[in-house]
Amino acid sequence: MTGKLIGVGVGPGDPELMTLKAVRALGEADVVAYFAKLGNGSHARAIAHAHFRDGAVELPLFYPVTTETPKDEAPYREAIAAFYDASAAMVAAHLDAGRNVAVLSEGDPLFYGSYMHLHVRLSARYPTEVIAGVTGMSGCWSQAATPIAQGDDILSILPGTLPEAELARRLAEADAAVIMKVGRNLPKIRRALEMSGRLARALYVERGTMNGSHCTPLATRDASPAPYFAIVLVPGWEARK
Amino acid sequence: MTGKLIGVGVGPGDPELMTLKAVRALGEADVVAYFAKLGNGSHARAIAHAHFRDGAVELPLFYPVTTETPKDEAPYREAIAAFYDASAAMVAAHLDAGRNVAVLSEGDPLFYGSYMHLHVRLSARYPTEVIAGVTGMSGCWSQAATPIAQGDDILSILPGTLPEAELARRLAEADAAVIMKVGRNLPKIRRALEMSGRLARALYVERGTMNGSHCTPLATRDASPAPYFAIVLVPGWEARK
Repeated sequence: MTGKLIGVGVGPGDPELMTLKAVRALGEADVVAYFAKLGNGSHARAIAHAHFRDGAVELPLFYPVTTETPKDEAPYREAIAAFYDASAAMVAAHLDAGRNVAVLSEGDPLFYGSYMHLHVRLSARYPTEVIAGVTGMSGCWSQAATPIAQGDDILSILPGTLPEAELARRLAEADAAVIMKVGRNLPKIRRALEMSGRLARALYVERGTMNGSHCTPLATRDASPAPYFAIVLVPGWEARK
Repeated sequence: MTGKLIGVGVGPGDPELMTLKAVRALGEADVVAYFAKLGNGSHARAIAHAHFRDGAVELPLFYPVTTETPKDEAPYREAIAAFYDASAAMVAAHLDAGRNVAVLSEGDPLFYGSYMHLHVRLSARYPTEVIAGVTGMSGCWSQAATPIAQGDDILSILPGTLPEAELARRLAEADAAVIMKVGRNLPKIRRALEMSGRLARALYVERGTMNGSHCTPLATRDASPAPYFAIVLVPGWEARK
């Protein structure tokens, strides 16, 4: 009997935004795996660790250090793929030994999460369950108490890595938008919002629902660098009134 | 002292996908309000009622019957606006009496939910909290165990009410998509997916995470009518391999 792979969404940051199902799964799991950066704690572990069962084996999966390697070039992509292959093999060793493995995922496991790199490598070979979680973006617009989309609104989820003109075009065509991967793309994002007439509605949210979170109109935010996981929300509601 | 308005996301259907925070809020609320159709039970109440505190007052808000009224015409819009005004007034009466009112919302309260019609009418006047929930779409792709979006994917959330050519154009421009409001739009949605080359990837999901849910490739689904709240997923991952 092999063990079961369980992708566990732990929500956007506030430990109370974990689901009952995630809590139960962690109370039953033999092994809890999570991605982490060397030297940093794992956010997902910090959210969820109070629910690990006594004696659970922890399996941190440390990303390779790639700061010297450009992200759009083959050596980076190969290093990352090799890392996911090795991580999947470590998880598989536990599954082969009959141990259930819960893999933590911030937000929702199948929505821009690292868990899915394990899922696509393992789910055909092992019994697998995915426990949906509250996404980071839901945590952000809830904290900001801002309706994001309604009725027949088109909501676009866009990476801040898009070229400026492309970002502006897509913002102009959407009723509502969420821009992910903000970080050093923030000045470009601000210009694209201005070009598309959306800047006045845009909210900047940092560390939504975590300690130290804040939310501010982007138009009045200063030009200091933003963390990678900040997001920008363009609520659709305002346009409907 | 007025009471507090609390928008409570109860998740996509499986009662275990409620958050710890939603459960706590319901255990503390004096009044629990929810939208419902006359003659139908409330889905949100069915998900959450085990957590209502003893003696909580239930406030069902019954949608007006509008089957004879075309949805894109003024009489319909006026009847619905009047209904939300009256609902907000009923909630406000409890808040004015110092009672905390939890308003149930399937999925996430601020993501295409009816709760936001109360929120915009009341949140400036009363202390308000919104508790994020797992969205219906997260429940669906988790149940289907299908990664929806990754990395720099553009994810478009589109209403099935869009004209066919417009839907096809937007599908062709997105890496991944979620189509809401399927119902009688399904034949049109199928044609738009075919035009945009996305039909082979599309999944049809009905009643995600609820009893009687199912998920099937849209290409092999028959042409029978779909319920309004069915959704179609176009996962982005397949295109990346």
